[in-house]
Amino acid sequence: MTAGRFITLEGGEGAGKTTQSALLADALIALGMQVIRTREPGGAPGAELLRGILLDGSIDWVPRAETLLHFAARAEHLANTILPALRAGKWVVCDRFHDSTLAYQGYGQGAERDLITLLIDRSEVAPDLTIVLDLGEPVASQRIRRRGGGSDRYERLDAAFHARVRQGFREIAAAEPKRCVLVDASANIADVHTAIMTAVRTRLLD
Amino acid sequence: MTAGRFITLEGGEGAGKTTQSALLADALIALGMQVIRTREPGGAPGAELLRGILLDGSIDWVPRAETLLHFAARAEHLANTILPALRAGKWVVCDRFHDSTLAYQGYGQGAERDLITLLIDRSEVAPDLTIVLDLGEPVASQRIRRRGGGSDRYERLDAAFHARVRQGFREIAAAEPKRCVLVDASANIADVHTAIMTAVRTRLLD
Repeated sequence: MTAGRFITLEGGEGAGKTTQSALLADALIALGMQVIRTREPGGAPGAELLRGILLDGSIDWVPRAETLLHFAARAEHLANTILPALRAGKWVVCDRFHDSTLAYQGYGQGAERDLITLLIDRSEVAPDLTIVLDLGEPVASQRIRRRGGGSDRYERLDAAFHARVRQGFREIAAAEPKRCVLVDASANIADVHTAIMTAVRTRLLD
Repeated sequence: MTAGRFITLEGGEGAGKTTQSALLADALIALGMQVIRTREPGGAPGAELLRGILLDGSIDWVPRAETLLHFAARAEHLANTILPALRAGKWVVCDRFHDSTLAYQGYGQGAERDLITLLIDRSEVAPDLTIVLDLGEPVASQRIRRRGGGSDRYERLDAAFHARVRQGFREIAAAEPKRCVLVDASANIADVHTAIMTAVRTRLLD
């Protein structure tokens, strides 16, 4: 049995993470891999419970509390979903992971970045590959409006917040080039998928 | 305006923390202090929400998640309740705080003690005085049975767990003698209260 691989998709609202993680999972299955698709916050029963209280906006958490809630949800997600899948030789495609906490809570909300980094460093596992979908304004806002429906707590935050989050993701990708690939998410769906598959092939399959 | 003081009461189930924190608060009020009584997990809206999901037992949290949830609740409690009271010159009497996380999650459940210590060290505030109510078997079990009613997740854990928690509290008290006073909680209510007031007078009032 070959070892599983852990791929995360990161980026701001409207960058196409959900669409692209579905296309990536399908492409990996077509290549013969066993694949699970998951997302954060969530991906395990306790983590989904925390997702609800993080996104519904009923509590205006202080940045440290919000950071710790994301890592608590992640501990459940890792123990119950991600690590068992990797140990079973599956490929895991995950929509948001560590970098979202650093970008949203650290860069966006001003939570202590050194605490976030320290909690990331204590994780049992790091992604083998992270696709950072980079998208600026006004395309991000146009896509969010177009998809309609309800908006969660993070989607409702202002333009300056989302600009800080984008800058955070760009800095993370620049700081960890061996793990991260920055992909221009303003291109059409097929072109973005092609760029992602190129990264997967060159970094994980060759 | 005099500065507020922060007193925590710690100890296992049945040690008398709730009774003694009420008596302590009354005695401080009689001495002319402005006092708030609070407890953990809880003490602020977000923290009370987390208290519910921690104690109801619907999720069997992994130790790291449970630890982080307690610290998330604590961040809310500190920011919204404890720090504003201390800044206003009030005395804060708190039923459980940092030491309970180290004793229950660290010693009791096997969560990473160094992570807990690290999160404690990053706290904005440490207690000025901690009363550790020490109680062994069979008195603890007798008291828990006598008070009857529903039991929460921690009360339902087994004797070996509670023995580890007690050992944890004793080690914490021994390691930090300037902050902590170990009080024999097997004595009657009045005698335990007298011992607590002696500690408060000699350490905070003289």
